[in-house]
Amino acid sequence: MARYVFGADVGGTTAKIGLLTETGEKLDFWEIPTRTENGGQYILEDVAKAIRAKMNEKNIDDSDVVGAGIGVPGAVNVDGLCYQAVNLGWENYNVVNEFHSKLKLPVKAGNDANVAALGEAWKGGGQGYPNMLLVTLGTGVGGGIINEGKILTGAKGSGGEIGHIHLVDDEVDACGCGNHGCFEQYASATGAVRLGKRILAATTEDSVLRTMDNFQCKDIFDAAKNGDAVAKQIAERYGYFLGKGIAITASVVNPEIIVIGGGVSKAGEILFDLLKPSFEKYVFPGCKDAKFALAKLGNDAGVYGAAKMLLY
Amino acid sequence: MARYVFGADVGGTTAKIGLLTETGEKLDFWEIPTRTENGGQYILEDVAKAIRAKMNEKNIDDSDVVGAGIGVPGAVNVDGLCYQAVNLGWENYNVVNEFHSKLKLPVKAGNDANVAALGEAWKGGGQGYPNMLLVTLGTGVGGGIINEGKILTGAKGSGGEIGHIHLVDDEVDACGCGNHGCFEQYASATGAVRLGKRILAATTEDSVLRTMDNFQCKDIFDAAKNGDAVAKQIAERYGYFLGKGIAITASVVNPEIIVIGGGVSKAGEILFDLLKPSFEKYVFPGCKDAKFALAKLGNDAGVYGAAKMLLY
Repeated sequence: MARYVFGADVGGTTAKIGLLTETGEKLDFWEIPTRTENGGQYILEDVAKAIRAKMNEKNIDDSDVVGAGIGVPGAVNVDGLCYQAVNLGWENYNVVNEFHSKLKLPVKAGNDANVAALGEAWKGGGQGYPNMLLVTLGTGVGGGIINEGKILTGAKGSGGEIGHIHLVDDEVDACGCGNHGCFEQYASATGAVRLGKRILAATTEDSVLRTMDNFQCKDIFDAAKNGDAVAKQIAERYGYFLGKGIAITASVVNPEIIVIGGGVSKAGEILFDLLKPSFEKYVFPGCKDAKFALAKLGNDAGVYGAAKMLLY
Repeated sequence: MARYVFGADVGGTTAKIGLLTETGEKLDFWEIPTRTENGGQYILEDVAKAIRAKMNEKNIDDSDVVGAGIGVPGAVNVDGLCYQAVNLGWENYNVVNEFHSKLKLPVKAGNDANVAALGEAWKGGGQGYPNMLLVTLGTGVGGGIINEGKILTGAKGSGGEIGHIHLVDDEVDACGCGNHGCFEQYASATGAVRLGKRILAATTEDSVLRTMDNFQCKDIFDAAKNGDAVAKQIAERYGYFLGKGIAITASVVNPEIIVIGGGVSKAGEILFDLLKPSFEKYVFPGCKDAKFALAKLGNDAGVYGAAKMLLY
C-alpha cells in the first residue's frame, strides 16, 4: 500500500508544503502564509494544521503517513535545535520537539539550504548521486553537502555553509558575516554586481552595463551572451571565483556531482564553461572528475528534501 | 558475552593489527611485515592468517567476532575499491572483496588517514564528539572528517584529503599533487622547514637554525620555545597558515572538535596558540566555537579506527 510523506519549507513570508508518496511522487504542493508575530510561535502550529487538514481532505490515516519534515531559514542541529532563525523570530527553539507536539506524527527538521540539497539529490539535478554538493547562487551563496544520501549537518547545523569559506586575502569590504574575503562576496548575484562595478570603474571601455541605472547579475550574463566585451570580462572573473570556491569545497568532501542552483543558475550551462578553468586549476586531482549539473526543482527543492529526511 | 573485533592498519613496511573488545578495550596489538612483492597480492592473506592465528591462540570462535576492518594507504570508496595504493602495489583492487575471501568474516576497508580519524574520534582526542576533524601534520598534511560518528568517504575515497585545499595564490613551487599553493606546502613538517628557509634567507638576524646543517620542523619549535626570535617568527607564520587552512575546512563541515595529530603535533599545545589567531580570523562565525585537542592514540589510531568501522 502506498504511504505518504509531507515536506514543508518555511520562509519568512510563506511556507511551502507538499504531500508526496514515499517514492517521491508529487501529489499536492501548496502554500500558507508564515505568521512571524509573537516570536514566530504560530508557525509550526499553522503548518501542522495545514497538514492535518490535507490528511482529512484526502482521507489519509496517521498510519499511512511516514512523517513530516521541515526546512527552516537558520542553523538546526541533528536534534532539531534551531539556534537562530532571524526571519521567523526564533532563537534556541527546538523545531523537532515543537513540531511533533503540534502534529503528533514523526518529524524531522533541517536548515533550508541543506534540505534543498537533499531534495536536489533525491529528485533533482543530483538524482542518482549519493555524494553531492549543492551550491546556491542567490543574494548570498548557500550550500548543502549530501554524504551517502544524507545531509551533512555538522556540530551546530552549519555544515555546507560554504558561502563563508575564505577565498580572497586583500578584500577591503566586509561580508555580512563580519569576515573579509568570503566566497559569497564574489560568487553571489550581489558579488557579481560588485565585481562588475569594480571592473567598469577600472576601464573606460564602452559597455551596455554603463547605460543601466542599476544593473543586476542577470544583465551581466545577458550582455556577455550578446558579445559585450566588458560584460564578458566580468563574467569570466565571476567564473574564476566561483570555480575556485567550489574547488576548495570539493577538495574537502569529494562530491560525485556538483549541482548549481539559485537565481544565478538561470544563466545556464555557460556557468560551467566559466567556472571550469579555475575549478580544474585549484581542485585536488583526486576530486577533479566531479560532474556538474544545474538544479532542477527550483523552489520545490526544499519541500522534496524536507520529506526525504523522513525516508533515510 | 564479550565480543571481539579486529583492526589492521597496513603500511608499506609493516601492518599493525589489533584485537579489541567491541567497547574498544585493547587486548592485543602486534605487527607483521607487509610483503609488497607481486603487486601486493600477499598482503591481505598475511593479515587474514595473522588474525586467524590469533583467534586460535585465544580460542575465539567466529561467532564471537564482529569482524575485521582494514586501513590502507590509498583512496578507498564505500564499496572497498582501492583506486591506487602506490606503497602496496595495488591498483583498482577491491580490498573488501579480497580481504573477505581470505578471512571469511565481515570486513570493512578505508583510507588510512580517514580510519585514523575514526580511531581518534572513538578512543582518542576526539572521544565524545561525533563531528570531528582530524588534521595530521607529518611529511604531508592528511586529514579525516567524522560526521555523526562515521567516516566521510566521498565519491572516490578522497573525503578529508584536506592537505590539498588551495591556500596561497602566488606559490611558485609545485606541490606533490601537481597544484600550487596547497595547504600541505605550508602546514606539513616539510612546509615548516620550507617556510623557515625562506624567512632565514630574507633576514640577516642571528638564529640557532643557521648553525644546523639541515634543520627539521622540530628544531624550529624547540628554538622558538628557547626564545630564538627568527624561529619564533617562523613558528608564527606556520601557525598562520595552519589556522587558515583549518578555518576553511571547518567552515565547510562545521566540526565540534578539531584534533591535531602527526609528528608536528609533538610540539604540543603551543600549536593551538599559534594557529588560533588566523583560525578565528578566517572561520565562519557559526563554526568558531570548535574545540581543539591533540591526538592521543599515536600509531594505534588506525587500528582502533579500522576496528570501529565494524561497529557502526
